[in-house]
Order: sequence, then structure tokens, then C-alpha cells
Amino acid sequence: MDQRPIGVFDSGLGGLTAVRQLRRIMPHEHIIYFGDTARVPYGNRGRETLLKYARQDVRFLRSFDLKAILIACGTVSTNCLEELRAENDIPILGVVEPAVERAAALTRNRRVGVVATRASIGSGAYARTFAGLRPDLQVTSLACPLFVPLVEEGRFRVGDVVIETVAEDYLSQLRTAGVDTLVMGCTHYPLLEGVIAKTMGPAVSLVDVGAEAAAALKNLLADRDGLTGDAEGSAAYYTSDRAADFQRLASLFLGEDVSGRVSAIDITRY
Amino acid sequence: MDQRPIGVFDSGLGGLTAVRQLRRIMPHEHIIYFGDTARVPYGNRGRETLLKYARQDVRFLRSFDLKAILIACGTVSTNCLEELRAENDIPILGVVEPAVERAAALTRNRRVGVVATRASIGSGAYARTFAGLRPDLQVTSLACPLFVPLVEEGRFRVGDVVIETVAEDYLSQLRTAGVDTLVMGCTHYPLLEGVIAKTMGPAVSLVDVGAEAAAALKNLLADRDGLTGDAEGSAAYYTSDRAADFQRLASLFLGEDVSGRVSAIDITRY
Repeated sequence: MDQRPIGVFDSGLGGLTAVRQLRRIMPHEHIIYFGDTARVPYGNRGRETLLKYARQDVRFLRSFDLKAILIACGTVSTNCLEELRAENDIPILGVVEPAVERAAALTRNRRVGVVATRASIGSGAYARTFAGLRPDLQVTSLACPLFVPLVEEGRFRVGDVVIETVAEDYLSQLRTAGVDTLVMGCTHYPLLEGVIAKTMGPAVSLVDVGAEAAAALKNLLADRDGLTGDAEGSAAYYTSDRAADFQRLASLFLGEDVSGRVSAIDITRY
Repeated sequence: MDQRPIGVFDSGLGGLTAVRQLRRIMPHEHIIYFGDTARVPYGNRGRETLLKYARQDVRFLRSFDLKAILIACGTVSTNCLEELRAENDIPILGVVEPAVERAAALTRNRRVGVVATRASIGSGAYARTFAGLRPDLQVTSLACPLFVPLVEEGRFRVGDVVIETVAEDYLSQLRTAGVDTLVMGCTHYPLLEGVIAKTMGPAVSLVDVGAEAAAALKNLLADRDGLTGDAEGSAAYYTSDRAADFQRLASLFLGEDVSGRVSAIDITRY
């Protein structure tokens, strides 16, 4: 049994979809979330910048005595996971490996698609991880840079011509490629599940990276007797920009009100 | 006569539309441009964060011996201009005042609209500047947070259902308000001129903040005999992220190739 909290970070608020899954499957855990809203989005940045930001995010989270860290940012998971693991003595999970394992288990025709930010796709991490685990799969990767801003402006619902047109323009080539499984490789994308499902059709299985990472973390903690007890869990939220702005989107991603549980910090000090 | 260069900065690449205007009307000047692509966008950030970023941008530019600085970022112009002027002994121009003066001169029905990022509108700077100059005008301000990412992904052309739907949803209330003049309060927006003109109709005059700021800077330099001579001008470009990425969008905003003239710097050192 380990009462220490779990740290979770993302470039912004999308990672709250992973927190939602964590709280759903591990309601007794304590969670510290950091969203780097002052520097969001990470998706189009260079690797050196990403690594600097990710190290600061981890240093801030480790100012708490944590038992594990979940990187709820696809871009950091694909670009910085090895460095962060080498530099830290607690388990660090990214969102790539659990999602790749799940997609590999789901596909029947061995054609898998991945959609994510430009940096996640450009890093080649999904393609490499698939190649290492299941070289027999044909993987089609696609950057969808407009998905995050459209979600954040509330344009994620089925029937909205803007998101449906953008989704069709991005995803039609995945239909052409004949994928039967699609990894939604960014924690913003669960909100687009309806639009993506409609665009891809009912025969395509969708993999939510946040949900798979939460499940993998639960397995990892359970294996080492690292889960907490039966007392009520908790969550505290930190942001690098205005706490008030955090709340505008938090309820969207998290499905619960976070009023009074959000604090602003200066991430450049870490 | 003053041979020193002019400094120009923006959160990213949109400010290059102002550089384009500067080079068009003052082809003999030397220009140093900094685009803070590692921290773009500024539009949705809090004021403390903005002020910190703007001070670093100015400190980097002033590592050159400049005669003036043009803030080609609407968000910084609306949130940080007073502080930057108080802290620096060279002229600093923002994009708000010149555009407001131009709009006030153009309107006939005294109803003016302003579109910009969330932070620019939220600062109230356009409304305050109009009120100080022409309290008789009725000003309708509107945040359009999706315009920048859509422009950057190439969705700015007339006939694109995505940008036209987003523009219609944003701008219909300005038509209802009966404005005859519209300030495009962000340096990305000149690329949307066709879409905005189509949405607003031919009776509405559009004001390009970058073009107005460039004209105001030329007047200011001419008044103090601060223009350079007749030799060929030049431009050098600095970015806080990958120089290669800079070039992807630079030609779009600037209308010329910048290969070999872009350098990456670490803005957090300033």
C-alpha cells in the first residue's frame, strides 16, 4: 500500500481526460495535476524546447512526494519519455505504449491508424513503438493540428459543419488506407469521439490514449502493491497561467467542477 | 538620418505581415524581426505572463542598437505598451493607436467593429483608445480565437466552408450592429481579408493594423529625421523555436523567401 499521490501533467487541459479515467478506475488515489497553460500548445514546438518544458513540469510535480507520474501529453510522451525516465527514480508512464498495445490487440486486418498533433506524429514514436511490438502491422500516421483549437473553442460536436469538414479532410485518407483501428493520440481527442466515429464509420475501433494509460498505471501500481487504501481519493490542480481560465475548460474535460482546487504557479522557476 | 535598424516582434509569424508593409513603404530600412514561436500564441494568456514575455522580447531586440521598436502583436500592444514605453528610451509603437485613428477617420455612421484575439479584446485597450479619441463612436469588440490557428493551417481562402462558417458565426453580430468600419486587430488577419470582406459585405471598410502601424512609424521617423539613407534595406529574422519551422509560414505572411536569414535563439535567457 502506498498513500503517496500520483502526478499527472499535460501542456494544458486535455490531460484532464486522463485524470477523469484515473479517478473512474482508481477512486481512492490522490492526484496532483499540472497543466502548463502558459506555454500551451506543445504540439508544434521543436524537440529541445519540449524537453526543457517537460523537465520543468516534472521538477514541479516532484516538489510533491509522488509514487508515479503519468505524462498525459502525447507530444511529451513521444518526444521526451526516455530522458525523463533516465532522470527520475519513480515510474513514469507515457500515453504511447499502452495505446499501441491496445490497438495491436484490437486490429483484425492489421491496418492501424494514428491521429495526433504535428509534433507527436513528426517524432515517429507511434510508428517506432508499433514497429517494435508488431512489425506485421501497417500503420498510417496523420497530424491533425486543428483538432485541439477546435475542441477548446467548443467545436467538437456531431452536426457542427466546421469540425465535421476538418475531420473529413483529415480522416478520409485513413478510410482509404482501410484501417480497422484508430489511436486517438492526444488527450483532447476523447471529446471528438463522436465526430471521429461518424467520420470513420462503425467498423473502426477507437483507442483513447488517456484511458489506456490510466489502465496501465493501475496495473503497474497493483503489481507492486502500490495502490492506496480505501479512503476517499482527492485531486489538486495547478496551472502556469490564470487559475480562473483553467476552470473555463476544466469541466469540459474532467466532467466535474474544480472550483477552489486550482492554484497558479510560475513554472519557469522549476 | 539614422542608419540604426528597426526592431519588430510578435508572438509568432503574424507580425511578418507588418514587416511586409514596412519593407513596402520604407525599402531602405534595416529590420530585425523576432517571432516568439516557442511560446506562441500569446492570445489566450494572462497579463502577468504576457508582460514577462514582452519584456524578454524587447530585451532580446535591444541587444541590437535600435532606433525604434514596432510591437506587431495585438495582444502585447493592448496589454503591455505603457510598461514597455516607461522602461525604454527609444520610441515603441503598438498596433492599436494607429488603427484606431484610421478607423475613426473612415467611419461615417460612427459604428465601428474590432476583431482580435481573446486577450486583446479582454484587455479593453481598443475600447479605451476609441473612447479617449472619439467618445461619440459606438464600438463593438469581438474575440475570434479560431482565426489564428485556421490561418496557420492554410484555411483562410474564400470558398473554404470551414473558415467561412467560423467567420459567419463570429461576424454576423457585427453586421447586426451595423458597423461600417472594421479593425482587423491581429497581424494574422490580413490573410483573411477576402473572407472577412465577403462576410461583412462591400459597404464595410477594413483596417489592417500592421499597415497602419507601419505608416505611423514612417511618419514618426520622418518627423525626427530618423529615416535611413538610400542604400538597400535589409531584414534579419530570429525565432525562439526551430528556424526550419519558421520558413513554413514565413513566405505566406511575408510574401518572400527568408531562407538563410533566420536564426534560432533562447528567449528565456533575456
